[in-house]
Amino acid sequence: MTGTTMGGVTSVPRPVDRDARGGSTAEARVRAAYARIAEVDRPEVWITLLPEDAVIASARVVDARIARGEVLPLAGRTVAVKDNIDVAGVPTTAACPSYATDPAGRPGPAAATAPAVQALVDAGAVVLGKTNLDQFATGLVGVRSPFGAVRHATLPERVSGGSSSGSAVAVALGIADIGIGTDTAGSGRVPAAFGGLVGIKTTLGLVPTTGVVPACRSYDAVTTFTRDLDLGVQAVRTMVGADPLDPARRTWPADVRLGLGAAPVVAVPRDEDLAPLSAGWRAAFDAAVQAVRAVGAQVRTVDISGMLAAATLLYDGAIVAERYEAVGAFLSDAPDADPTVRSIILAGRDTPAHAYVGDRARLAIAKVEAAAVLDGCDLLLLPTTTEHPTIAAVQADPVAINRRLGTYTNFVNLLDLAAVAIPAGQADGGPFGVTLVSRAFDDQLALDLAARLLDEDPAPVVETGVDLLVVGAHLRGQPLHHELEELGARFGRSVRTSDAYRLVALDTQPRKPGLLRVGPGGGAPIAGEVWRLSPGALGRLLGALPAPMMLGQVELADGTWVVGFGCTVESGAAGADITATGGWVEALRSGL
Amino acid sequence: MTGTTMGGVTSVPRPVDRDARGGSTAEARVRAAYARIAEVDRPEVWITLLPEDAVIASARVVDARIARGEVLPLAGRTVAVKDNIDVAGVPTTAACPSYATDPAGRPGPAAATAPAVQALVDAGAVVLGKTNLDQFATGLVGVRSPFGAVRHATLPERVSGGSSSGSAVAVALGIADIGIGTDTAGSGRVPAAFGGLVGIKTTLGLVPTTGVVPACRSYDAVTTFTRDLDLGVQAVRTMVGADPLDPARRTWPADVRLGLGAAPVVAVPRDEDLAPLSAGWRAAFDAAVQAVRAVGAQVRTVDISGMLAAATLLYDGAIVAERYEAVGAFLSDAPDADPTVRSIILAGRDTPAHAYVGDRARLAIAKVEAAAVLDGCDLLLLPTTTEHPTIAAVQADPVAINRRLGTYTNFVNLLDLAAVAIPAGQADGGPFGVTLVSRAFDDQLALDLAARLLDEDPAPVVETGVDLLVVGAHLRGQPLHHELEELGARFGRSVRTSDAYRLVALDTQPRKPGLLRVGPGGGAPIAGEVWRLSPGALGRLLGALPAPMMLGQVELADGTWVVGFGCTVESGAAGADITATGGWVEALRSGL
Repeated sequence: MTGTTMGGVTSVPRPVDRDARGGSTAEARVRAAYARIAEVDRPEVWITLLPEDAVIASARVVDARIARGEVLPLAGRTVAVKDNIDVAGVPTTAACPSYATDPAGRPGPAAATAPAVQALVDAGAVVLGKTNLDQFATGLVGVRSPFGAVRHATLPERVSGGSSSGSAVAVALGIADIGIGTDTAGSGRVPAAFGGLVGIKTTLGLVPTTGVVPACRSYDAVTTFTRDLDLGVQAVRTMVGADPLDPARRTWPADVRLGLGAAPVVAVPRDEDLAPLSAGWRAAFDAAVQAVRAVGAQVRTVDISGMLAAATLLYDGAIVAERYEAVGAFLSDAPDADPTVRSIILAGRDTPAHAYVGDRARLAIAKVEAAAVLDGCDLLLLPTTTEHPTIAAVQADPVAINRRLGTYTNFVNLLDLAAVAIPAGQADGGPFGVTLVSRAFDDQLALDLAARLLDEDPAPVVETGVDLLVVGAHLRGQPLHHELEELGARFGRSVRTSDAYRLVALDTQPRKPGLLRVGPGGGAPIAGEVWRLSPGALGRLLGALPAPMMLGQVELADGTWVVGFGCTVESGAAGADITATGGWVEALRSGL
Repeated sequence: MTGTTMGGVTSVPRPVDRDARGGSTAEARVRAAYARIAEVDRPEVWITLLPEDAVIASARVVDARIARGEVLPLAGRTVAVKDNIDVAGVPTTAACPSYATDPAGRPGPAAATAPAVQALVDAGAVVLGKTNLDQFATGLVGVRSPFGAVRHATLPERVSGGSSSGSAVAVALGIADIGIGTDTAGSGRVPAAFGGLVGIKTTLGLVPTTGVVPACRSYDAVTTFTRDLDLGVQAVRTMVGADPLDPARRTWPADVRLGLGAAPVVAVPRDEDLAPLSAGWRAAFDAAVQAVRAVGAQVRTVDISGMLAAATLLYDGAIVAERYEAVGAFLSDAPDADPTVRSIILAGRDTPAHAYVGDRARLAIAKVEAAAVLDGCDLLLLPTTTEHPTIAAVQADPVAINRRLGTYTNFVNLLDLAAVAIPAGQADGGPFGVTLVSRAFDDQLALDLAARLLDEDPAPVVETGVDLLVVGAHLRGQPLHHELEELGARFGRSVRTSDAYRLVALDTQPRKPGLLRVGPGGGAPIAGEVWRLSPGALGRLLGALPAPMMLGQVELADGTWVVGFGCTVESGAAGADITATGGWVEALRSGL
């Protein structure tokens, strides 16, 4: 840990520093990726590595698009795709070669690329190949695959974490920029923790799972691994809503919170809830709590035992029938099934539907209880997993260790929460990671705290919202600023208006200025701040806005227009002119 | 049918005209209800009729509250509660006497009243008793009960419809003002159709099902039967959100639509989708389509075969396991189980969970497909059921007729739609009814069309929203009015501002006026309209509002303030003063 940021970026070397590879063109980035593949000699990472020539051809298409003037936010970013997600022309094995079939049921390549991945490609990314995984995404270890155990990037005797093992290690090794994984029980988070990576698991339904081999249909998410937060958010933003016909589709609500307040309340588990941690991970978690405090959060200890108990329903209850529904009939006589995976999934064969319905009802209650535990908190901070085991240990005991690794991840999708796993220093001689858990659709809040901890400033993941110029009592530090925080407003930038505005001191309580448009040159540039609000938040603000304040388009010094504060003619005429101060804070400082 | 309204209210006599009973106090209303109970001699309506003395005591409590000055919107309204919903102190049998247990599992009365019913009581309603039903709410006929078949109110040889048979008949007979039912497959709609009643089945999760014996947990709704729409909406509004801890709770979204446009698009099924109707019901449905046209709707024929096919999953697929989960273990050896109900529910015992998961996935796809069918439509008009059978016919063939009766109701909850069943004249010698189906959370749109058809004007069911005064291009008939309709705005009232405002003609395209507050007496009352928008809709309107328009509090002639349109000082100063016209429409008429 250094200063107020967590170790991942600043003080603990990651396996590969960000932007160590790459170059100015997509082709150069692809060539660098293949050079790195040759250098690291980790064949178990890939199930299908695409031929270098073919990928270079794809990269040249991207370079040509850029040359034609297209703006491609992910231009030349290399992508490793977990092999339970379709990429057109490549078999989808889910780490079970006999499972790969064409649309007619015959062995063969996928006909179409999953919409989430296609969205990345459309944005300029280039797919390198399909990566190894715990078979049928069943596992958190990266060991359960006929393609071999995926070794950790820098500690090869240890597990990589799974099930999205290959995608995570491809990124941790500096081969790919973006690893695409899936996450039902933690498969997008545990490998992030072990790899010193950022893993983003959005609220269920935002990123489409179309073209993904289901693990548990109700609880599957497509996730990202990246070396920094910025690129992960960029990739997630690109994938959200990529399939309008996804049956599981959900969209950002009209009152989605767009930003985390300056002093958020972060829940952390009680000591007893942290008992499963190794001593080293326990100490590292305490340091992470301190780091969260250091970036301005208030920490509140909560009892998460109910959430931990709910997690047991994923494998011990009837929910495992979802895994059987997805691939069980096939697995019953697949010659290349991993024995551990087969035994887990076939356990769901005879579960009666009424037991499943009952467990879903129990989960619904657990969700209400979890909401009560988190009431008044913005986020929940958790260790991502409990320890970092060796491959040998897991192979000797393939179920118990795996299960412990899911302690803090299993319940998240079951209870409809979102999560961002981030690196947080080291423990037990390897990377350590924590996860920021938010309510459904509060993904941005978790990303915002992650950004503060990692000292990054990514663009927001939520692209909706209306910019609002504030020039008075809603400015940071002023008496009504809390209204913006309560509405989930997100700071944009400090600005000045054009010189078409006069500022007057109004006769209000609390004291406020009024901004009046009098025409170009008739006033002076007035200082303000632009905050972005969801439509629902803006409507609520306007609904509660007292006279004589008004909202409408205001011209900024750079010639753009945003919704901003004004006031009535009547009040403006009655107020003392303070235009010359250049802004409300200056006016107050000058002893108004 | 008369004029532009459907027959239920205006031209076809209902069993009892509205407000035929009652009086000025709760006590008088209760006494009238018991007199009516004695008069009609329909003991099969009730499973537990509360002693008259006890109910009079409850009524006196209400009268005392009113005497103390409390405002009770449902003061003295009498309520019949389906006996699968808890009322404290009364056994909940679900029409299976051996099922009634106390919280410790011993036979006995319910410990607490279901929150939905308690909300009615808190609002002044008085519960008369618990009503008969198809056992465990499994049926659409009202015949499947050891308490006897519930005879139709006016055609006693015919079925009442079910499963909420007793509650519907109690209202149709003029005993109770409000019948509370439940509706999984149509139990709140089919009895409404047969009874010439209004039946409101809101979007799942709005009215809590806490304290209700589950039929299918995922698809159960608490519903109302009333003789007019106004009281039904009043009751529903009271019940929405009554249990903050309901695990199935959903709330109105921030951009909920609050009003139906003047010329809504209403989908109707193709001829072949209407083949199950009796000839008389088919003719009556055609008349109903004409009535919908007559109130200004555009009718669009759509293919609902996919929805009808989805409906078969409710009983033919794995979803029936939800019924087994709810009461199956109990029913296996209940001595007083209805044989038809027992055989339906026990069929769900051995359904494997993976089959249920698969059927849920199929339903998710059917939901996407239904959304595509309804794309561009505001509502779907359906016959509520297919025919009105006799009790003898149903007893002779207890499954097939029941199943046919659910043709147009079964899929509604499965596909997460809302529905309002209303009377629509007569067919085959008895009442005929149609159902207005909306998307989830568009309940208000269905209620609005119901109000136009029934020539009523109930208060809105959605209580959130912000009032917005429009004085120019957003007025009805003006060029930007469509923006309000697209945002789901709801007309409130025509108003005038206080005399503190001047009106000027702005130099905009399209032409708009600007309203400027200059102070009391400085201007004149200006005509406008108040429209209510959801917060999300208001935020979107503001975000897209071009300069020089502004929004803020405006004072009305009655001294109240609402958010309204204004404009910048600059534009106001440049515009021609048209205050003397008294409003924009007058100004345009005067040849501006």
